[in-house]
Amino acid sequence: MSQQQRQQFPALSNKTYLNYGGQGPLPQTAINAIRQAYEWVQRIGPFSAQANAWAQDCANQTRQAIAEELGVTADTIALTEDVTVGCNIALWGIDWQRGDRLVMTDCEHPGVVATVQELQYRFGVEVDLCPVQATLNTNNAVEVIAEALTANTRLVVLSHILWNTGQVLPLKEIVAACRQVSTRSGEPIRVLADAAQSVGVLPLALADSGVDYYAFTGHKWLCGPAGVGGFYCHPEAMASLRPTFIGWRGITMDATGNPTGPKANAQRYEIATSAYPLYMGLREAIAVHRRWGTAQARYEQICRQSQRLWEGLREIPQVSCLRTAPPEAGLVSFVLESADHKGLVQFLQQHGVMVRTILDPSCVRACVHYVSDEPEIERLLQHIRRFVESS
Amino acid sequence: MSQQQRQQFPALSNKTYLNYGGQGPLPQTAINAIRQAYEWVQRIGPFSAQANAWAQDCANQTRQAIAEELGVTADTIALTEDVTVGCNIALWGIDWQRGDRLVMTDCEHPGVVATVQELQYRFGVEVDLCPVQATLNTNNAVEVIAEALTANTRLVVLSHILWNTGQVLPLKEIVAACRQVSTRSGEPIRVLADAAQSVGVLPLALADSGVDYYAFTGHKWLCGPAGVGGFYCHPEAMASLRPTFIGWRGITMDATGNPTGPKANAQRYEIATSAYPLYMGLREAIAVHRRWGTAQARYEQICRQSQRLWEGLREIPQVSCLRTAPPEAGLVSFVLESADHKGLVQFLQQHGVMVRTILDPSCVRACVHYVSDEPEIERLLQHIRRFVESS
Repeated sequence: MSQQQRQQFPALSNKTYLNYGGQGPLPQTAINAIRQAYEWVQRIGPFSAQANAWAQDCANQTRQAIAEELGVTADTIALTEDVTVGCNIALWGIDWQRGDRLVMTDCEHPGVVATVQELQYRFGVEVDLCPVQATLNTNNAVEVIAEALTANTRLVVLSHILWNTGQVLPLKEIVAACRQVSTRSGEPIRVLADAAQSVGVLPLALADSGVDYYAFTGHKWLCGPAGVGGFYCHPEAMASLRPTFIGWRGITMDATGNPTGPKANAQRYEIATSAYPLYMGLREAIAVHRRWGTAQARYEQICRQSQRLWEGLREIPQVSCLRTAPPEAGLVSFVLESADHKGLVQFLQQHGVMVRTILDPSCVRACVHYVSDEPEIERLLQHIRRFVESS
Repeated sequence: MSQQQRQQFPALSNKTYLNYGGQGPLPQTAINAIRQAYEWVQRIGPFSAQANAWAQDCANQTRQAIAEELGVTADTIALTEDVTVGCNIALWGIDWQRGDRLVMTDCEHPGVVATVQELQYRFGVEVDLCPVQATLNTNNAVEVIAEALTANTRLVVLSHILWNTGQVLPLKEIVAACRQVSTRSGEPIRVLADAAQSVGVLPLALADSGVDYYAFTGHKWLCGPAGVGGFYCHPEAMASLRPTFIGWRGITMDATGNPTGPKANAQRYEIATSAYPLYMGLREAIAVHRRWGTAQARYEQICRQSQRLWEGLREIPQVSCLRTAPPEAGLVSFVLESADHKGLVQFLQQHGVMVRTILDPSCVRACVHYVSDEPEIERLLQHIRRFVESS
């Protein structure tokens, strides 16, 4: 069943692909859906009543498919170009006042860190960097984050799965800790999760988690095309999160085309023209996963395969996994005694095995998905052994 | 030569397509380039050293092709998802202070108007709406805009070609008028041009015009795929225009991946992952136009064809063109005595002729490009005559 599923991904046929955390491979049916959409739009439009209705329908279907994966309703989902745009929507949508505080983990992606730095510059926001990286094997991330919260904290910025170490942060518990703080503004401390590494991996029930903002992409673990992501906003958080980059897709208009305000649902955060054919590609990629199994079944298979890799790595001399317990998701980060991580990644690439380096903490990151098979994991291990022995 | 060129666009084979101002048709070679890029990325990546280098190369080639069309250097170009994102980059990048003034024409697109309204709300920016629509036939747009400028004006927001009436605003003269004003801040009054309707139409020499910010899209008159646009920033305006939505594509990083600031060139305004295969589609669409003729030759052909349409419309009873002189570009807007513009557009659509309504001023807008031929224009005129006679 795994082999049959793998055969749907052309990228998996000629290499050992372990970079899902960078970009996932596209199923052939998604590639076909994109091509057919381009041809269809040319036939009926591209700008016409029929083509415009088709584009709206594409967007609706895609929001719906995403919402089902996230365990929320479609009216809480905005389509974006990528996960970073979603993070920016949340970060810029708060009415920051001088002296407001923002808590951020020390494992966030540079793009998000740079946006937070810009908020510091523009609005005098004060940032508390929270040492979560050190909790990888101590299981106390919630306490560490809770300790950083103050009455002036407006927002916590974290990743649901840390992109560098693969740690899964307990989102629901962190949100609960935020809700216990009495703030000066009287507003709850909001939580923004960068979900680049969690959507398509964890079985999600976001509505249940209480998270306020959840930014994600379709092109990593969901195996959709690059250029389509999304942003979830909790219905109760929507009224106080203003749209920043604004365009015709996010607003309502009167009979003469004058803007009358943001749309009532999360589409208020959408901007303007996007590549609608790619929406069909993402929808089809999600359908491919669902045909294989439930989110729970896919997650369990991911964990089985990542544990297999983690165990194999532990048997190689001069290699240490960052985690002392089996991974909770598909990211497996490890270090070499020699610290020649760049050399290893290049060596593996030469042998058709794709993984990547991480700079902080300096390590190598391999990603296994539910479609990853044992021969792939064995090939990775074998080439690491060869590299270590020869260096 | 026109027929041969038309045959490269599948969308032109089965309809009378006059909606270039909404979305242009894709050349078959652009569709092929997109498909080949998707296949190539799957073969080599999708996330790998080779694929990442390919994506960078795609972006570089596309910025270069755009820069040549605009008459600027590639380091002044940021790739965006669409024209609206480009407008937002300029509008949010200024360090607005309470009481700053912004001059905007009364013909801007609702998405841009809505963003300006948000700036009013967030920063207390004051907006002077400038009555440019009434200058369509009086040739005094520069004076009308110059009259609105004050010592507190920070920015003028206009469209190079007005999307509703098709008027071409004299960009260079408007910039010159702005430069003559002594401002309180000591900074020059900046000019943001929404170039949705001008890129791919006018022969451009932006560096020479002095314009500060120029936001455009590839999917209208350039006939590239929806989802790729761009933003030009004058080199001298770049230092004072801060990036707002920020991501890994716009920043520099140190050896451990910490952000160290915005990139030195206009790539500082790019955010994160995009649909790189579409860049190849836009580049190919631009190449198709260049093989047909120079920007000047294409523009002259557009004007010849729009004049033909304008003359034909004037001969139909109960139809009036908004312009009293021949169009200066490809947009031809007209009204019916009956004012049943929606009815006409639907009637035309039923007969395979695609144009659109505009709400303010209420009118019908037909767009002719250099590939538009006489039979198309004749079919449009004939169906309008039939509609008018039967109603």
